[in-house]
Amino acid sequence: MKDLAAEREELFRLDQAWARAAAARDVEGSLSFWAEDARVVPPGQPALVGKDAIRGYVSAALAMPGFSIQWRTADFVVSASGDMAYGFGTNTVTVDGPDGKPLAERGRALTVWRKDPGGTWRCVVDIWNAEPAAAAGRGL
Amino acid sequence: MKDLAAEREELFRLDQAWARAAAARDVEGSLSFWAEDARVVPPGQPALVGKDAIRGYVSAALAMPGFSIQWRTADFVVSASGDMAYGFGTNTVTVDGPDGKPLAERGRALTVWRKDPGGTWRCVVDIWNAEPAAAAGRGL
Repeated sequence: MKDLAAEREELFRLDQAWARAAAARDVEGSLSFWAEDARVVPPGQPALVGKDAIRGYVSAALAMPGFSIQWRTADFVVSASGDMAYGFGTNTVTVDGPDGKPLAERGRALTVWRKDPGGTWRCVVDIWNAEPAAAAGRGL
Repeated sequence: MKDLAAEREELFRLDQAWARAAAARDVEGSLSFWAEDARVVPPGQPALVGKDAIRGYVSAALAMPGFSIQWRTADFVVSASGDMAYGFGTNTVTVDGPDGKPLAERGRALTVWRKDPGGTWRCVVDIWNAEPAAAAGRGL
């Protein structure tokens, strides 16, 4: 019997470590949370499949003036076998706008995670979209 | 030992039946593929949580002039326990534009599925976003 509560806690722990790596503009650190064959699907941009494609995307994002990303995963749900999980929540991507002032776009995200043969959870799919332009409330 | 290949086939079968229900503008038929607590997260619109909220969204969509939706799930991946799965693929939503001509928006979708206590797979999370405006290729 898998301890699914412990798996869920481990996913929250990894997710928070991932967010810290992104905040620190650590490209390789950020990349380590995705599986080798992960898919990242940014709104309005080509889907990125595999670590190399994702590395290019992350490097370019972190080099954008004023770029930052924050996210909050509302919950993780783990399969009975403890080998697949998903998390949903909200994110905010900020970049400098044309006038140099920060432009924030808020979104809703879904990630799918797979436990690799070594026992480490890695993100295998990562997709998000924009929340309504004049959102009164938030939440996925 | 779960027969995961059979589960994957069943997911493809359900997904195709779901697409036929949507094409037939069958609101209750379409709704039957989501779990009671499902989340639907349309780009730029509020997230819908639960069957009642989703019913309102689907009814409104199907009533839009010229509305149609097609999708193709590229693959389903099933957890070892056969209780959780995800599918990714592409979709096209068409509505009549202001000039009455059909406007198509192409997107990339991720769905998460859960097997309910009765043994039926239901979609629990459904999120998509737009592909690049001038996409040369497609694919999630």
